Amino acid sequence: MTLPSSLTARAVTEPEVKATYAVDESVGVAAPDHFEVVRARDLDDVVEVLTYAHHTGTPVVPQGARSGLAGGAVAVEGGIVLSLERLRSLLDVDPVECLAVVSPGMVTADVKAAAAAQGLFYPPDPASSAFCTIGGNVATNAGGLCCVKYGVTADYVRGLEVVLAGGEVMRTGRRTAKGVAGLDLTGLFVGSEGTLGVVTEATLRLLPAPDPALTVLATFATLGEASEAILRLRRDRHRPSLLELLDATSIAAVQSIADFGFPAGCAAALIVQSDRPGHTAEDVQRYAAVLTDAGATEVAVADDAQESDALLAGRRALHHGLVAKGTHFIEDLCVPVGDLTRLIAAGHEISARTGVEISMSGHGGDGNLHPSFFYDPADEASRHRAEEAFGDLVKVALSMGGTITGEHGVGSLKARWLPQEVGCASLERQRSLKALFDPRGILNPGRVYWS
Amino acid sequence: MTLPSSLTARAVTEPEVKATYAVDESVGVAAPDHFEVVRARDLDDVVEVLTYAHHTGTPVVPQGARSGLAGGAVAVEGGIVLSLERLRSLLDVDPVECLAVVSPGMVTADVKAAAAAQGLFYPPDPASSAFCTIGGNVATNAGGLCCVKYGVTADYVRGLEVVLAGGEVMRTGRRTAKGVAGLDLTGLFVGSEGTLGVVTEATLRLLPAPDPALTVLATFATLGEASEAILRLRRDRHRPSLLELLDATSIAAVQSIADFGFPAGCAAALIVQSDRPGHTAEDVQRYAAVLTDAGATEVAVADDAQESDALLAGRRALHHGLVAKGTHFIEDLCVPVGDLTRLIAAGHEISARTGVEISMSGHGGDGNLHPSFFYDPADEASRHRAEEAFGDLVKVALSMGGTITGEHGVGSLKARWLPQEVGCASLERQRSLKALFDPRGILNPGRVYWS
Repeated sequence: MTLPSSLTARAVTEPEVKATYAVDESVGVAAPDHFEVVRARDLDDVVEVLTYAHHTGTPVVPQGARSGLAGGAVAVEGGIVLSLERLRSLLDVDPVECLAVVSPGMVTADVKAAAAAQGLFYPPDPASSAFCTIGGNVATNAGGLCCVKYGVTADYVRGLEVVLAGGEVMRTGRRTAKGVAGLDLTGLFVGSEGTLGVVTEATLRLLPAPDPALTVLATFATLGEASEAILRLRRDRHRPSLLELLDATSIAAVQSIADFGFPAGCAAALIVQSDRPGHTAEDVQRYAAVLTDAGATEVAVADDAQESDALLAGRRALHHGLVAKGTHFIEDLCVPVGDLTRLIAAGHEISARTGVEISMSGHGGDGNLHPSFFYDPADEASRHRAEEAFGDLVKVALSMGGTITGEHGVGSLKARWLPQEVGCASLERQRSLKALFDPRGILNPGRVYWS
Repeated sequence: MTLPSSLTARAVTEPEVKATYAVDESVGVAAPDHFEVVRARDLDDVVEVLTYAHHTGTPVVPQGARSGLAGGAVAVEGGIVLSLERLRSLLDVDPVECLAVVSPGMVTADVKAAAAAQGLFYPPDPASSAFCTIGGNVATNAGGLCCVKYGVTADYVRGLEVVLAGGEVMRTGRRTAKGVAGLDLTGLFVGSEGTLGVVTEATLRLLPAPDPALTVLATFATLGEASEAILRLRRDRHRPSLLELLDATSIAAVQSIADFGFPAGCAAALIVQSDRPGHTAEDVQRYAAVLTDAGATEVAVADDAQESDALLAGRRALHHGLVAKGTHFIEDLCVPVGDLTRLIAAGHEISARTGVEISMSGHGGDGNLHPSFFYDPADEASRHRAEEAFGDLVKVALSMGGTITGEHGVGSLKARWLPQEVGCASLERQRSLKALFDPRGILNPGRVYWS
């Protein structure tokens, strides 16, 4: 494939630079041999790429910061990687309407900072928020550490500008607080993983700023007690703004890179926060009592922002700890919170049976865990066992009415389980919707449910 | 049209009873001469109707409580009215997952009560909540008095069971707190006004219960000052849970049915509430100070629930007051809140120019007003003038980036403005989506955007 001359000015040609656009943060999706990279500078560039690609049948992979974990932004053979990272304008922040209008390449943390500068709050907080972009967050309907209280990206997207296959520009949604005219195309695009169109502008709903969060850290002798504590905390009238779970394997992994203060031998830890204006100290004391009552062996309550950060540091270090521990698949199952204990028990059973080491941690308050399956990358059989073990745990989650992906997306890695989760009637309509918006199948081909 | 024998047992044959199913609460949509009414008793009945209708090309109008104001549930000639009012089961309330699973005919107030019995809260609160049903709320993405703080029905629908044209049953969404597997078909069905399928079950997200609300009532000498007060209240860190606006015409209409305590000659009133746990008294005092500072002539602050109800009573009586005042179209425009003053001024200008009396009231805190246009039903020219005046105000709202419908739906009455609001690219895809889900066009034909 040769780019038309009008696009070559925006193409990345330096081989070492180009190679960085081949993959995202996922493990196990191979980079292709031949692809082009175009870094769009404006809406017109996006229109031109999607017009050209539609007419020539060229695959297009939209890319933000390439921080995705499901292989949804890996380049495809003979295709164009369309990077939106240079479209990073803050177009508006309106403190009366409580919204922000942003370009897709804007880094999530920068959107949060722009809101904060007006006393407002953009809640979505994926672990990658320091470098991931809003376009990618919209594409995957990203979640993060705040969802237990604040929900996910979809809850904050009021409207979009998208470029469709063929180059037509469409606006969805609205700027107003309410509006029910016609079908909700905004919701259809949020979480569509780049398969229906390319987002070039997002209108985001903002909230008033909460207080700086205070943290409680509790450790437990059993995972069952930690799970029970989660259920009790969810019944609290003032829902924690963060409710994270670490199992023994995860704790050992973070302790191996630095001492985050977890006592030796504990089976689980919960990290809980309140950001409720005027009540953070009261809330964390109440949460601490609930945690103690549920059987916590040690409970530490932060008095100030510095202590809060220190108590959360172990959770923030989890990704690095697991990477240091070894090569692994990171997964993203979500089950009803009441089934969390059973999901964790199933993970232990699968680990014992298969010999695959599995860590179980993540957004416990949502029932959304990121089990990690460790393997030896030099040993094909070891990798295969890890994949099998993962498949076994997926089946358990689905049998509970859970989902194969709480927040990372289906991408390339989970497409095979989608039919079982959504069922034939839904899958057939999803395929038809894809064909309606992208009749030539150029947008992120092979992803989600069209592999 | 003759119903198949298997459906006649569920048909309404008594002419007086049948006639009540011909129309909803809208003004200006004619009832047809010939139609059948089937009251479904279970999922199988809905499947049977949609199978029969699809194969015979018979129009189907899904109906809840017929409280809609946009003509979205009026029977159509030669069609079947499919009433869901008998499917009114509370299937589950889960206090840990914070959700309820309900049948579509369940009355909204009953869902709210079922949640409250578990210390939980289902926020959507359309003015008709004492008799409207969840199925209708989902179909129109209903709003109400709480939206300024809590949003609309779409924000609380986690999953649906729907019957598609042809009778296939499809599940959308999920029971889990998070989930991003595949396209969001739930959002597509919410607000689709019965044109894509028939909802037979809804999984609803619940919140912890707030405190009983306290109310402030403020009156103003000018509408401009009341609008300015709305903008200031929206900047408050603790957003009111209710922020309603009445203009002089609306105040006179409610005062004509009883004395609700509005002083003579005031140009506008704002009713403001807080339901923030532990802080309602503090919030309403702060709101009162903001209202006074913005120029309110009188401010009354409730001390308890009884006073609160009394101060809200005038707003609750608005619908009756306007009906008593005379025949009118009730509209549902929503503009950016910052444009509210200009929208109201435009209404006054149109009224002065056309001689049509227009009241301007509604959910001021959202920028969502329900202007009512009064006319003499015996005078065709008067009615025509009211329609023209309405069209003029719609154009103003659209020019502000507003919408033709904040919460009532497009229905039969507003379809002609939809193309201008959403644009060609969106309209074309909406039409294609309709064709995808309902290729024979049997579901609520002539509604929304296919008239």
